[in-house]
Order: sequence, then C-alpha cells, then structure tokens
Amino acid sequence: MHYTSEDISSWDRVLRLKIINSVTGIKPANLIGTVGENGTTNLAVFSSLVHLGSRPALLGLITRPQTDDVGHTLQNITESGDYTINHIHPEFTKQAHYTSAKFKRTVSEFEACGLTEEFIENFKAPFVQESKFKIGMEFVEAIELPNGTKLVIGEVKHLILPDIDLNEGDIDLEQTNSVGISGLNSYYELKKLTQYPFVRLDEVPKF
Amino acid sequence: MHYTSEDISSWDRVLRLKIINSVTGIKPANLIGTVGENGTTNLAVFSSLVHLGSRPALLGLITRPQTDDVGHTLQNITESGDYTINHIHPEFTKQAHYTSAKFKRTVSEFEACGLTEEFIENFKAPFVQESKFKIGMEFVEAIELPNGTKLVIGEVKHLILPDIDLNEGDIDLEQTNSVGISGLNSYYELKKLTQYPFVRLDEVPKF
Repeated sequence: MHYTSEDISSWDRVLRLKIINSVTGIKPANLIGTVGENGTTNLAVFSSLVHLGSRPALLGLITRPQTDDVGHTLQNITESGDYTINHIHPEFTKQAHYTSAKFKRTVSEFEACGLTEEFIENFKAPFVQESKFKIGMEFVEAIELPNGTKLVIGEVKHLILPDIDLNEGDIDLEQTNSVGISGLNSYYELKKLTQYPFVRLDEVPKF
Repeated sequence: MHYTSEDISSWDRVLRLKIINSVTGIKPANLIGTVGENGTTNLAVFSSLVHLGSRPALLGLITRPQTDDVGHTLQNITESGDYTINHIHPEFTKQAHYTSAKFKRTVSEFEACGLTEEFIENFKAPFVQESKFKIGMEFVEAIELPNGTKLVIGEVKHLILPDIDLNEGDIDLEQTNSVGISGLNSYYELKKLTQYPFVRLDEVPKF
C-alpha cells in the first residue's frame, strides 16, 4: 500500500493521529513524574523520550502545546527544575495508560491511577515505586519546535537500576522487563534477538 | 543500585556511552536512506527517530556532530531535500547494523552491507527494498541543540506499508515484524501485550 501526502491529508483526524503516531516504529514507554508549585504531584505516560548525548548525559522529551486545563508536566518541570523518568513494566501498563486522562491540576495521577510515590533526598520530583528502572533528571532547556511542540532537554542526575548484570554497559531491556508503545495505546514486551559488536570498518564482513 | 551524576561522570567513556544510550528504554530501529550531490547513496542505522506531530505529519531525528570523514546523512538530506525511513526486520538486522561502520563518502552502504536500493518517481532518496514499512520524508529544518547534536525535522510525504489491516489506525508492530534497539547494538523483537482505549476522564476505572 502506497499512501501519498494527499492521502494522509484526506484521512480524518483520529485515523491520521493513530497512523502517524505509529510510523516511527516502537517507542519507549515511560512515566514522567513531576510536582507543581501547588504541591500536587503529576504523572504522565510519554513515548517521546530520546537520547541526545552521553557527555553530558542528556535526554529529550517532546511535549505538546499546553492549555490551562491539561498538560502540567512541562509547567511543573520548569517550576521545580526536576523530573523523573520511570520505565513501565507489564504489571502496570493499565495504571500507566490511564494517566493519559485529562485530570485537573489539583488531582494527582499517582492516587487516581493506583501508583505509589517515592522520593529521594534533595530531589523534589516523585519517582514511581512500582518501576524498577528510574532516572532523576535536571531540567536544562525547552526548545520550541515549528509545530508548537517543545523539545524538553534534561540531564541525568540519578540512575536507579535493578540489580542486574550491567554486562559492560549492555543493559538487556528484556531482563529489566521494560515495555514499548506503538501509536497511542498499544503496549509491547521485548524479546532480545541478537547483539552485535561495535563496528570497525576493517571488520565489516562480505555481504 | 543507585548511581549519581558523580558516579556517571567517573565511568569510562565507553561504559557511559553504552549505559546512557540504554536508559531511555526501547528505541525504534530504522535505516535512513539518502543520496549526496556526488550521486553516491548512503544508508545508516538510527535509533533516535521521534514523533513530533500529526498535522502536519512531522518526525524528528537526532544527528551527531558531523566531520568530513563520517556522518553523511545530514549533509545528504540538506543537499537533496529528501530522505527515507525504513523499518528494520529480523531478517536483516546484521546488514543494518554494519551500516554503522565509518565508510568513506564514495562508498554506498547499500552495496557494502548487502541491501537493495529502491526508488520511486519524483523522489531522490533511496528506499530499502528489503524493508516492508517505508516512509518518504521531505526535509523541513535542522535545529542545533546545546550539545552540538541536531534535531532534523521532516514531513511525511510517502507511506509505503505492508498489506496489513490498518485496524482503524492501530498498526500492530508485531504484525509488521518491526524491531527495536537497546543501547548501541542490541536488537529486540516485539510481542504485543495489550491495547487500551483512548482515555476519557469519566471512563477511568477505580484503582
């Protein structure tokens, strides 16, 4: 099937939204934990986390345009200066997914969706206790993109990992039981297929 | 295990590179196809593709700082104005991975790595024939990020999909046999766990 930009424009809003959200392939499934100046914690499922660099350790997150009613994640991040990233596991995909409902700012998704806040010293944002793979982030900068979304850049300050074999740094996401997302609402588990060495030019086999 | 930013700074370059490349969770596995002004095609594995918006249909890609020797993808994209995104399948993860070797600009990774170029009318960049899920992109803008990487923004112009049930837009990435990447060199297949409805506030169950 070959669809052109004219076909894509002709699709209704929801069909286009679902398909275009799927075409990149599998996306990481994370819960972003924040707290606002009003003291209410916030938790939101995001599939747009992306690695930007390792030195310094920077990660990016795409956030949609915010309104007064919904989307408190970026507001909280800029207010408090920190946020958490928590891998989603199969045991709580349902709780994680329901954080996408448009709760009011005075409601904490932790409580509304049955997940547990966890705090560490000298860090304002809440982690998700049920997650075994957690990152504490410090806000760096939010860059406005041409379509009104923002790229929120942060630096890794804490890594809270399960007691797994770090295996020279090759973290096995099947072993950590991390999941992926397709589109807006489908969740996948991961089965490791294979691992290759870092490729040096003189080691490329003949194909 | 709890690692702080001090621990992370103390890790050697390769360990830090591998771990920080893994912490976001699963990443989409795509081959980016381009062609330079010199006529040589280029193919490179990328795991940093991210959805930016559906109307217009925009996707982003993080590219590392380029040198004269390596990293011709962004140069080719800005020269020709277009590029392709091709999902990687289990049958050719090895070929895909070896495109990460630092080939000279006069060498096409298609030929060096045993993959097949495919062209469509009025579109310069090469698709990967072996991929069943392909996107033709038009370059929009490259935004420089604080660490010297760039966010390359493009608009979806062609979608070439397998003959699957679009299922109201919920594309099943297990059915399309798309794979994911962890870190720099581990490949995963996907097993669909579950799918939830779009969440309306009055439909959130009690947790």
